[in-house]
Amino acid sequence: MKALSAGATIGILGGGQLGRMMANAAAQLGFDVSIYCPEHDCPAARVASAHALGAYTDVEALLDWAEGCDVVTYEFENVPVEAAEALIAAGISVRPGAQPLEVSQDRLVEKNFLQSCGIATADFAQINGPADIEAPLERFGGQGILKTRRDGYDGKGQARLASGDDFEAAHKALSGAPCILEAMVPFEREVSVIIARDAVGDTLCFDLPRNEHVNGILKRSVVPSGLSDEVTKRAEAAAGALAEAMNYIGVLALEFFVLEDGTLLANEFAPRVHNSGHWTPEACATGQFEQHIRAVAGWPLGPVTRYHDVEMLNLLGEEALVPPDALAADGVLTLYGKREAKPGRKMGHLVRRRS
Amino acid sequence: MKALSAGATIGILGGGQLGRMMANAAAQLGFDVSIYCPEHDCPAARVASAHALGAYTDVEALLDWAEGCDVVTYEFENVPVEAAEALIAAGISVRPGAQPLEVSQDRLVEKNFLQSCGIATADFAQINGPADIEAPLERFGGQGILKTRRDGYDGKGQARLASGDDFEAAHKALSGAPCILEAMVPFEREVSVIIARDAVGDTLCFDLPRNEHVNGILKRSVVPSGLSDEVTKRAEAAAGALAEAMNYIGVLALEFFVLEDGTLLANEFAPRVHNSGHWTPEACATGQFEQHIRAVAGWPLGPVTRYHDVEMLNLLGEEALVPPDALAADGVLTLYGKREAKPGRKMGHLVRRRS
Repeated sequence: MKALSAGATIGILGGGQLGRMMANAAAQLGFDVSIYCPEHDCPAARVASAHALGAYTDVEALLDWAEGCDVVTYEFENVPVEAAEALIAAGISVRPGAQPLEVSQDRLVEKNFLQSCGIATADFAQINGPADIEAPLERFGGQGILKTRRDGYDGKGQARLASGDDFEAAHKALSGAPCILEAMVPFEREVSVIIARDAVGDTLCFDLPRNEHVNGILKRSVVPSGLSDEVTKRAEAAAGALAEAMNYIGVLALEFFVLEDGTLLANEFAPRVHNSGHWTPEACATGQFEQHIRAVAGWPLGPVTRYHDVEMLNLLGEEALVPPDALAADGVLTLYGKREAKPGRKMGHLVRRRS
Repeated sequence: MKALSAGATIGILGGGQLGRMMANAAAQLGFDVSIYCPEHDCPAARVASAHALGAYTDVEALLDWAEGCDVVTYEFENVPVEAAEALIAAGISVRPGAQPLEVSQDRLVEKNFLQSCGIATADFAQINGPADIEAPLERFGGQGILKTRRDGYDGKGQARLASGDDFEAAHKALSGAPCILEAMVPFEREVSVIIARDAVGDTLCFDLPRNEHVNGILKRSVVPSGLSDEVTKRAEAAAGALAEAMNYIGVLALEFFVLEDGTLLANEFAPRVHNSGHWTPEACATGQFEQHIRAVAGWPLGPVTRYHDVEMLNLLGEEALVPPDALAADGVLTLYGKREAKPGRKMGHLVRRRS
C-alpha cells in the first residue's frame, strides 16, 4: 500500500471513544473517516464523514463498506478475525492486520505468543473445566485468578480463587467458558508501553505511564512512571519485539506488572490505541491517536517528545456528570459523547499537567 | 442561556476549515455539532454529526436547522446579519451575536466602531465614487489603499493608489462598490490579539502573534511577537474594550499595525477564531477553538498558558500537495480536507516549535 494523501478515507471498525479520538486525529491530518459498527448514533460516527451500520460478522456488508476506504483499521480487539481476514482476502489493507486480533482475543494464545517473543508473563495454566484448577492453583501457592480466555475487559470475566474455594461454582459463574488460571503477582506497580510501528518498521515508544486500576478498571495513569531507565528500556524492547513479531503497523499497548526487583511480567496487550495513553495528545508533540493514523496511512511517525509531567484520570459513570464547569477548570477535559452514564462506564477523561 | 452539558448540540454557520477545527474541539468536549452551509461536502460537515444544506438567506431553513441546536455560533464574518437576527428573534442563542457581524462586515462601520471604543486606526475616508478619492489621498500624502467596504478578504477587493492614478478605473476594478480609502501605514510589524470573552464577561488573551502577510494573505505567525510588555498590554486592553462594547461571547481577533514608536493602529477585527491563532492548540493549555466552544457553551475559559515558542506557517494552494511525509516530518500538520488546491487557497498549516 502506498502512503495515503490527504483526502483519502480511513475506515475504522468500531464506534466507541477510541474510534472517536482516532477520527478527530485523522481529520486534523486532512483525512476522511468512515466508521463501521453495529450501533446507531455511536460516539465515533458523530465525528466521521460516513457511517455504515452493520454486524462485524456480515462479511458482505463489510466488503461493501470497505470499498469506500483506502485503508481499514480497528479501535477494539474483539473485531472477529474472520472479518479482518475477509477484508484482506479482498485486497483491502487492514492495519495492524488480522494476527494481532487473533493473538490478543484469546488469553491463552496471547500468553504463549508473548513467551514465544521472549517476554515473561505470570505463571498460567489452561483451564477447560473445574477439575483443571486445583493442581496449578497449588503450584501457584494456593491463590490465583481465573479468567475467561475470551471477551474479558475492564475486570469482567475474572474471579479470584484460593485453595478450598468451590471451583465448580467459580467456573460456572464464568459461564463455564474456557479459561486460564493465572498466578497472583506481587507487583509493586503497573506500567504500560505504548509503542507505534510504521509501515517501514520504525518504532517509537511514548514515555511509560504508571497505571492505577480500581475494580479492574483503569483509574489513573501518571507520567513519568518512576521506573529506572534500565527497566524502562527492557519494557520498551519487549514491546518492540512483540510489534516486530506481528509485523505490526499502528499503535499497540503492552501492559506490565513490575515486581520489587525490577522483574517485568507482561499482563496483556491491546492491538490499538490505549486508555493509558490518553495523556499523549495533551503532553506530547504527537498524540497516540495521530501516531496510529500516521502509521496506518503509511506516513512516518511523529516525534513523541513529552513537554511536561502529566496525569490522566478516567471519568467513570456519573463522574462525568458533575457540572462540566467544575471539570473543565481542572485540566484538559475530553468527553466521549456517550448518551448514558452507566456505572463504571468510561465517559471521559481529564489530563492534568504536573510539575 | 444556561451552561450546556456534554451531549448538547452546537450549531455552526459555515462549513470551512475554521468550522472544521471548531467541530473537532467541540467533539473533544463531548458536544455534537451541526453545520449549516450552502456547500455540499464541505470540510466542517465531514467531522460533524449533522449537516444542513441551505442558503444563509433562507430564514425558514435556518430556523428549521436551529431547532436542533442548543446554541448557534459562526465561523465566518459574512453570515448575513439578518440571518443572525432572525435566529435571535426566534429565541435562539447566537453567540457572539448579530452586532459583531454588522460591525465587521463593513470597513467603514468597523473603523468608526473601533474609534468609538477608543481604539486608533489608520486615517481613512469614505469613498462613494472616484470623485471622492483625490482630496483624502492628498491628505494621506499622495498614497493610500482603496478597499471595498464589504466582502474583502485575504487581500481581495483592494487596490493601492497614488496621486495621478486613474481613480475611475481603479474604482471600476472594484466593481464601483462603496469603498474606503485608507492611509498607508509605515508599520514596523503586524500583530493580532486573540481574545476570548465568556458569558460572564471574563476575558483572556493568548500571547500575541506577529503576523507576516504575502500578497495580502497571512503566511506566517510567530510567537512571541517581540513587542514590549507595555505595548502588548495596550493591545490587549484595546481588544478587551472592543469585546466588552459588543458584549461579545467567544473568540475574537483584532489585528494591529505597530509603528516604530510603539503606536498601535487597529486594522480590522474578525468576530471568530482566527488564522493567526492556529498555533494555540499545539502550544497552549487551551487552543482557540476549544476556547471559543467553551465560551459559546457557557463554560468558563481555559488557561492560555503557552508552553513554548512557536511559529505557524500557512500552506497555500499546492504547498499542501508536496508529499505529506515531508510536511509531517517538519512540525504538527493540520490539513483542512479541501478537495481542490486552488492557487493561494488556504489548504492547511504547520505548527513548529521554536526554542
